[in-house]
Amino acid sequence: MTAETELLLFLAARAQICRELIAPALAAGRPVICDRFLDSSLAYQGYGRGLGAEAVEQLNRFAAAEIRPDRTYLLDLPVKLAQERLNSRQMEKNRLDLESLEFMEKTRQGFLSLADRERQRIVLLDARRSPEEIQAQIREDLRRFLK
Amino acid sequence: MTAETELLLFLAARAQICRELIAPALAAGRPVICDRFLDSSLAYQGYGRGLGAEAVEQLNRFAAAEIRPDRTYLLDLPVKLAQERLNSRQMEKNRLDLESLEFMEKTRQGFLSLADRERQRIVLLDARRSPEEIQAQIREDLRRFLK
Repeated sequence: MTAETELLLFLAARAQICRELIAPALAAGRPVICDRFLDSSLAYQGYGRGLGAEAVEQLNRFAAAEIRPDRTYLLDLPVKLAQERLNSRQMEKNRLDLESLEFMEKTRQGFLSLADRERQRIVLLDARRSPEEIQAQIREDLRRFLK
Repeated sequence: MTAETELLLFLAARAQICRELIAPALAAGRPVICDRFLDSSLAYQGYGRGLGAEAVEQLNRFAAAEIRPDRTYLLDLPVKLAQERLNSRQMEKNRLDLESLEFMEKTRQGFLSLADRERQRIVLLDARRSPEEIQAQIREDLRRFLK
């Protein structure tokens, strides 16, 4: 599968979920939590696959229309450690999980540069900490943010 | 399925076929004939679905990279007649074939305005004529064009 095809398939799914589920939920005043959204396309396909941030941003806009996250939590981990965690899981790995360390490193750098550019929105969290610590950090940040 | 999703799925298929089949064939000096390509996305999704020609053109460029047809034959038919022909066929109809007359009319007008804008490339043919007559017209045009 080419990188362009992969991106367009992710965006097709996003276009559908945005209009079918997310937009109606937001219109009804309900909060929406996504595990991966626009930033993941930018990091994985824009940086990791090398399609470029600008092209992916333009396509993201088409797919997601006006929908933007208010707050984003980036759980950051050195790629070596991330891969060890993936390998220790029983879960089925997807095609991106099976990629090279080099790809994961480019993707991580993409995420970090997004976090650097959008400090107002993206909260960078050290995922080497325990799940309990990270959860506490997110809860506290969200409580402050929602005030 | 939303119009955006439909377009992105067609483009995902196009991105793949362009890089996997069409580009290598062109690089090897072989002629490539497509039944539907960039113009169909413009007409069906840009005009028929109302996504707009500009948005679809931009996405087409991403999906097809630098690949552009040298010559295009547009077999034009009044939509009523086109629908009668579709209905008389034993072939399975796709989701676009099952659309309303209004959608087909907008799509047809899209194709005609493309043909009007790109007279150098698009040859407009009256599909009310017999297959033999149309084939003869295409053969003759192509012979002249390839000289």
